[in-house]
Amino acid sequence: MIIDIHGHYTTAPKALEVWRNRQIAALGNPADMPKPSELHISDDELRESIETNQLRLMRERGLDLTVFSPRASFMAHHIGDFAVSSTWAAICNELCYRVSQLFPAHFIPAAMLPQSPGVDAATCIPELVKCVEQYGNVAINLNPDPSGGHWTSSPLSDRYWYPIYEKMVEYDIPAMIHVSTSCNACFHTTGAHYLNADTTAFMQCLTSDLFRDFPTLRFVIPHGGGAVPYHWGRFRGLAQEMKKPPLQEHLLNNIFFDTCVYHQPGIDLLTRVIPVDNILFASEMIGAVRGIDPQTHHYFDDTKRYVEAADVNPEERHLIYEGNARRVYPRLNAALLAQGR
Amino acid sequence: MIIDIHGHYTTAPKALEVWRNRQIAALGNPADMPKPSELHISDDELRESIETNQLRLMRERGLDLTVFSPRASFMAHHIGDFAVSSTWAAICNELCYRVSQLFPAHFIPAAMLPQSPGVDAATCIPELVKCVEQYGNVAINLNPDPSGGHWTSSPLSDRYWYPIYEKMVEYDIPAMIHVSTSCNACFHTTGAHYLNADTTAFMQCLTSDLFRDFPTLRFVIPHGGGAVPYHWGRFRGLAQEMKKPPLQEHLLNNIFFDTCVYHQPGIDLLTRVIPVDNILFASEMIGAVRGIDPQTHHYFDDTKRYVEAADVNPEERHLIYEGNARRVYPRLNAALLAQGR
Repeated sequence: MIIDIHGHYTTAPKALEVWRNRQIAALGNPADMPKPSELHISDDELRESIETNQLRLMRERGLDLTVFSPRASFMAHHIGDFAVSSTWAAICNELCYRVSQLFPAHFIPAAMLPQSPGVDAATCIPELVKCVEQYGNVAINLNPDPSGGHWTSSPLSDRYWYPIYEKMVEYDIPAMIHVSTSCNACFHTTGAHYLNADTTAFMQCLTSDLFRDFPTLRFVIPHGGGAVPYHWGRFRGLAQEMKKPPLQEHLLNNIFFDTCVYHQPGIDLLTRVIPVDNILFASEMIGAVRGIDPQTHHYFDDTKRYVEAADVNPEERHLIYEGNARRVYPRLNAALLAQGR
Repeated sequence: MIIDIHGHYTTAPKALEVWRNRQIAALGNPADMPKPSELHISDDELRESIETNQLRLMRERGLDLTVFSPRASFMAHHIGDFAVSSTWAAICNELCYRVSQLFPAHFIPAAMLPQSPGVDAATCIPELVKCVEQYGNVAINLNPDPSGGHWTSSPLSDRYWYPIYEKMVEYDIPAMIHVSTSCNACFHTTGAHYLNADTTAFMQCLTSDLFRDFPTLRFVIPHGGGAVPYHWGRFRGLAQEMKKPPLQEHLLNNIFFDTCVYHQPGIDLLTRVIPVDNILFASEMIGAVRGIDPQTHHYFDDTKRYVEAADVNPEERHLIYEGNARRVYPRLNAALLAQGR
């Protein structure tokens, strides 16, 4: 089977965005704040938004299951305070949960957290617990820059983040390290901020000994790892100068890369450079790049085509498509086994 | 001949750093500010610092000429005000000029600018004029983030930068877009900030119509273009969604990438994806990654080895080594012709 470990609910019914806009408009004006109960989205609306979009494309492309989380660019943790983020995260996570209940064979949820700049990371734990214990989430998305492009938080190696890591270890769930919208005019959200964050997160891990403190902690770095595989020699060299162990030993028991790289040469580099055990299939569909490549006449984000054409053998391709996801996301594996898959 | 378009004076005599540390220590205390005349570095000291380092390695590797600019991480435009940056830039540029006079066959200078966060970019023009007209500089380094990792300046497409572009066009000189030290704990300088800035700068150009205003403006994006070539499909797709022309037409008359990518698969990707006319040989030696790759037993930054092994024909390799540099740096070409080269 083919598991796409990186899907966001980018196609939620319009009512969600309308509610969020009301919430944002009411910032600083509590009386105007909309209640979560004022958001009404029916199961039929959810069904239609999925069947005509993600599920249609999954069927066309032959993808079986998507790890499905709230729309990354809409997390916008920089907006409002913790209460705002908390309400918003709860709403978004509930929708992904409902999608997973409507399409249990095709979607399994991953949670966004109610992060807020400068707020104790432990405040995220109740939502995390609910999502894992009640909603069956198999992973979280962790935003290394809740400020939205101003990078005011501590690096991921800082103890600030440890409450989240402790819970991740307890539940044995990975985190995809994924920023949200940039509110810094220097950084285009999907063309710069996302990729920069991937590279930044990797380097924060490289310079630290985080995984000595948390040997079973697992991070998935999306978008093919940002600039990391292309500059693998640079990172190997920097680690060597810092007297760190080789990257395989220092980071690759804990860090994994997805295949959201939207052309053949990029996937070829990824599979050439990064050990196959550390590559997980993903497309981030329907996401940042929705068009058809005039050079191939296929969707840019139809990453399965690139993996099919990559120089890997069938056993390795199976790891990329399924085996690694089952290993890195044990709760996903358990859910699949419970379904007899 | 082989021209390395990306070398910094990272090996300047210790007196330079001592002077800079005095300058930094005197911030806010004008009476303690050291005078430029208190810095004494003899020609013999310059000669030794070059002969035992860059020139030795250039000879070992068979490189003929380096475009030589002040140490990037030492520019540190975020330190002090314009006066501090101005004095510091003048000192550093003079040293590179002196190196070029001592070794005219091997080094030709490129200038750092006295940038300072929030200060009018036009304040950089006098130093730029001096460096081009009196010192024979053939290019500048332009820091897109003088704040040092806080990204408080406007994007490169903003009119803030136009005074510099107007002078670049007048002199027909390119700018290497190169940040300096990160003072943001999130960003490791050479492992994250440099690469992020490369990606960010490219995307700032992609989303804008800067090169419609300046059709002959030329930017060299170092470190192999950050994440750009690896994600070339993503950038093609984003440009398409923004209704921009194809990247070749939209950006590749004006943007060029160097070969500072420190492993074979990275250079192979670069030469596979980016048109050969847009690739310029460089090593950034002696720079961020100084060690020997245990996998190859050669220096990580001996990028000539990767270019030699890349799948390009002799004519294409000549463009990468020399032809493109002569075209993108017309003042370099003129200086070489004047030397009969």
